[in-house]
Amino acid sequence: MHGYLLTIAYDGAGFAGWQRQEGFDSVQERLEEALGHLFGEPVVVHGAGRTDAGVHALRQCAHVHVPRDFEPHDLLRAVNGHLPETVRVRDCRRVPPGFHARFSASGKRYVYRSVVSRILPVFGRGRVHWIRRPVDLERIRAGARHLRGEHDFAAFSSNPGYQRKRGTVRRIDQLRVVRRPHGFDLFAQGNGFLYNMVRTIAGTLIDVGVGRSEPDDVASILASCDRRRAGFNAPAEGLYLLRVLYPPEAFDPRTAWAVNAAECGVGSFAEGPG
Amino acid sequence: MHGYLLTIAYDGAGFAGWQRQEGFDSVQERLEEALGHLFGEPVVVHGAGRTDAGVHALRQCAHVHVPRDFEPHDLLRAVNGHLPETVRVRDCRRVPPGFHARFSASGKRYVYRSVVSRILPVFGRGRVHWIRRPVDLERIRAGARHLRGEHDFAAFSSNPGYQRKRGTVRRIDQLRVVRRPHGFDLFAQGNGFLYNMVRTIAGTLIDVGVGRSEPDDVASILASCDRRRAGFNAPAEGLYLLRVLYPPEAFDPRTAWAVNAAECGVGSFAEGPG
Repeated sequence: MHGYLLTIAYDGAGFAGWQRQEGFDSVQERLEEALGHLFGEPVVVHGAGRTDAGVHALRQCAHVHVPRDFEPHDLLRAVNGHLPETVRVRDCRRVPPGFHARFSASGKRYVYRSVVSRILPVFGRGRVHWIRRPVDLERIRAGARHLRGEHDFAAFSSNPGYQRKRGTVRRIDQLRVVRRPHGFDLFAQGNGFLYNMVRTIAGTLIDVGVGRSEPDDVASILASCDRRRAGFNAPAEGLYLLRVLYPPEAFDPRTAWAVNAAECGVGSFAEGPG
Repeated sequence: MHGYLLTIAYDGAGFAGWQRQEGFDSVQERLEEALGHLFGEPVVVHGAGRTDAGVHALRQCAHVHVPRDFEPHDLLRAVNGHLPETVRVRDCRRVPPGFHARFSASGKRYVYRSVVSRILPVFGRGRVHWIRRPVDLERIRAGARHLRGEHDFAAFSSNPGYQRKRGTVRRIDQLRVVRRPHGFDLFAQGNGFLYNMVRTIAGTLIDVGVGRSEPDDVASILASCDRRRAGFNAPAEGLYLLRVLYPPEAFDPRTAWAVNAAECGVGSFAEGPG
């Protein structure tokens, strides 16, 4: 079998999310269909993580093992030829057998995009979150300061119990607000994110930005570990998975996916296969 | 009757263009339906100009005369309440009885957006023109220099005969290329544009940019007044009407639409109604 890492962009608006679900249109299914068509047998696509219905990706990552060898660029073109226009493989490269899109990853980077406008943004439907009230970005920045670094983010996950294996402690390396001509972007990078964590952080900080809560409330919300204290779950349409981050060792056949396996609760593989 | 100028944004992807056409979905029809619903009688919407199927607008302008007085902001909200999400009135203001969205206008501003990428841009479908080959913006800039100023643009119109009244001489005040992270924007501002003129200019300059023709060819194409010499008609999806420009006198009840009527071939009104 031949291993490849695919980097994938998709417009989440028309999908029920990344993960294959019976009766729904998913990005994973579309990729598996394209690869199945190409190889004449089922191919499983292992994503770096799920994205919810409506969430977009500029550089989602997924690995596949396929039965025939392809030049990476030829594989990219062949797969794209079987995909809808809303999904596109942007990059394809060979990976060692032990590489795992999820377990080898060391972090992720997202952006949450908001437009601030009294009038519905015609070109933003399904692509950005629309905020009708004025937003004070300095308040958002002040609130965001409390979230950087390593914390228990249980208050910012819709379903913290689901994360049993790895617990709810994560490290946010970057949480930055960038003003845009008609709104703002909230960039979040960290070693991992709980279910709905970016959207809940966005919702909580938007509450701060429009004056529904105070910047320092963010500290007490975080400390409470209580989801009910945090803000709303900001809509999926504003969220983009920007990058999945891998350490260089992940591409080394001797260490491959073991690199981060320990952190992911797959401790017995922590030493690597060789 | 009460006159209002509406400033309108629309996503052209789902429309057969601005103009009402039997059996097709048009922006004008949607606006007329919304206003008809509001006033209980037919209201004609007079646009500053047509846009073709697939062409977008950030600030198209149109005037209406309605039978009841409304506060402009209330009218804006009421109309928006009856419009699909792909059309939005962004601004509404009173205008004098003689104001005419088309004849009072002194110019227009467009942008033609291109993405340069080997891979189909997932978020660009219907919104930008996709160019697969490398583009040299300096070549485009050199070609664009020949088009600024007042010229006979017959070579850049799909149907120059259609413009009989006003002829085919227009003045381009600005033609500027701006590099974007994944492509470039071509801004064009002038006192008027022939049918398909911005798209033909864009197609011709893209030909220059990818090396299919030389920057100085643009001068001889222009001089030829021959449409067959110019480049392709760049696809509608990349084109946005940015602004319709009005001189301050257009909003003066004494001069109103007469301001530019002469230029538009409606010479007898050149002196204004009073």
